[in-house]
Amino acid sequence: MSVIYDRVALIGLGLIAGSMAHAMRQNGLAGEIVGYARSAETRQTARDIGLCDVVYDDVTDAVKDTDLVVLAVPVGAMGQVAAEIAPFLKPGATVTDVGSVKQSVIEAVAPHIPDGVHFIPGHPLAGTEHSGPTSGFATLFRNRWWLLTPLPGSDELAVQRLTDLILAMGAKTDRMEPAHHDLVLAVTSHAPHLIAYTMVGVADHLRRVTDEEVIQYSAAGFRDFTRIAASDPTMWRDVFLHNKEATLDILGRFTEELFMLQRAIRMGDGQQLHDYFTRTRAIRRGIIEAGQDTNAPDFGRVSEGATKP
Amino acid sequence: MSVIYDRVALIGLGLIAGSMAHAMRQNGLAGEIVGYARSAETRQTARDIGLCDVVYDDVTDAVKDTDLVVLAVPVGAMGQVAAEIAPFLKPGATVTDVGSVKQSVIEAVAPHIPDGVHFIPGHPLAGTEHSGPTSGFATLFRNRWWLLTPLPGSDELAVQRLTDLILAMGAKTDRMEPAHHDLVLAVTSHAPHLIAYTMVGVADHLRRVTDEEVIQYSAAGFRDFTRIAASDPTMWRDVFLHNKEATLDILGRFTEELFMLQRAIRMGDGQQLHDYFTRTRAIRRGIIEAGQDTNAPDFGRVSEGATKP
Repeated sequence: MSVIYDRVALIGLGLIAGSMAHAMRQNGLAGEIVGYARSAETRQTARDIGLCDVVYDDVTDAVKDTDLVVLAVPVGAMGQVAAEIAPFLKPGATVTDVGSVKQSVIEAVAPHIPDGVHFIPGHPLAGTEHSGPTSGFATLFRNRWWLLTPLPGSDELAVQRLTDLILAMGAKTDRMEPAHHDLVLAVTSHAPHLIAYTMVGVADHLRRVTDEEVIQYSAAGFRDFTRIAASDPTMWRDVFLHNKEATLDILGRFTEELFMLQRAIRMGDGQQLHDYFTRTRAIRRGIIEAGQDTNAPDFGRVSEGATKP
Repeated sequence: MSVIYDRVALIGLGLIAGSMAHAMRQNGLAGEIVGYARSAETRQTARDIGLCDVVYDDVTDAVKDTDLVVLAVPVGAMGQVAAEIAPFLKPGATVTDVGSVKQSVIEAVAPHIPDGVHFIPGHPLAGTEHSGPTSGFATLFRNRWWLLTPLPGSDELAVQRLTDLILAMGAKTDRMEPAHHDLVLAVTSHAPHLIAYTMVGVADHLRRVTDEEVIQYSAAGFRDFTRIAASDPTMWRDVFLHNKEATLDILGRFTEELFMLQRAIRMGDGQQLHDYFTRTRAIRRGIIEAGQDTNAPDFGRVSEGATKP
């Protein structure tokens, strides 16, 4: 493949930025890949492993004369970084971010972006439970969604160029309204992650059941959840604080619904439970028929956790 | 491998019994495999696909002169089936079950078992979201746990023989107290499954987010959860009604804990969130260090759902 941006600056050198560096280098998508991280230790590790062509000690040096600036820091740090780099951005450059929340990032970053620079917010739905400069790998984005939430009046050529980079790294991409993005992710990711953290916490409190038993005998979905609970605490703290309204909305609906089922168990109302489970089964089958997922017995997969109750 | 039981009767011909039939036949573990199902339609399908050597219309014919009787019906139906077959059981035979709850099955079944017949309760932790006589496959139990909860004074030779069968079908096995089994499963499977059902229900109520978006953009753990929600409604209804105390205990702890985190989000208490997530990360890492799971970045696995928030 050919070079899409002459110089790319990765601000924050964690799992996502590191994986971008590997994917861009492997596919020859950037002329030069430079980076910056706030922590001196992270910068040193990145230099030791040759993650970027240059790692700067000063963020302003990284963004100077740069065609694509990627903000890959926790959501709560985006505004501060944008303020620092704004005066040094090259006219015509593109700034994107990889934050898991879009509305609050746009509110924090957009006011700092000077005229003539394109700010195109994005969110790759890919990750592992590992973090830091050594955790990235070139195939992280392969077949994963990378959502873009361009602002009204965005330069279509700039959006297309960023789209080309995303596709060239192996991802699939789609465009969404920022508010809709935050609601969809609250349902599919943020609320489930909080539930995962909670469930691991509960299991740990039960002194009569060992952590080893929890892992060993976990159903596949829950076993994955225990892995989720090992993810970066700072990133997740910021996600919840910055997608507060949507997350609380979903959690409110969730607990109402859970209480209804919990009451049915307590009252021995088998009919209500059966009706509810029949309905969720129909929802799931509807999704399969719509071609959004396969009917293969995924829970029978070898080397994964078991799922029978 | 060699024959372990001359004649095995499978009572109930769903996913577990069907998979046992395939696994036993493939490995030559049973001289004869016979079956029974309450539904005439299920019996006919089982005959059409040749699932067993004989499928009987009367359950008593299935258990006569049989060395191993496997009760593979929903937990709520175990007692009734045990009462029906009890007078026809062969002296020296073993009766086992595959129910997801052990205490209530023991209470329902054990009183019916005549002297000289060995009742050895069991629970294979394996399954898929599919059910019925055509859903089974020979490798379902491979590398999965199959827990046994023998009663005090069980015949050790009978337990060992059943263990041999389980191992020969590719499973791993362990013994547990019935009450401990029910608590462990409430944490690792029953409560998480109810949460999965609830989360799919919540997602479906949100008219602004489509079911397709839910699947498409789901984190890996949650995507598996949507599959869980397609599991057999009758089986799950019975699990919750029959492991009521442990499930309600776990759900109570879960909602208390979730409310604490929910409140921290509402109050913007980032420190509390960060501390909590740091603790769950340590739990998870402790589990890896104890050698109970691997450190491979499982969420980066190809062809699975994404997991970054």
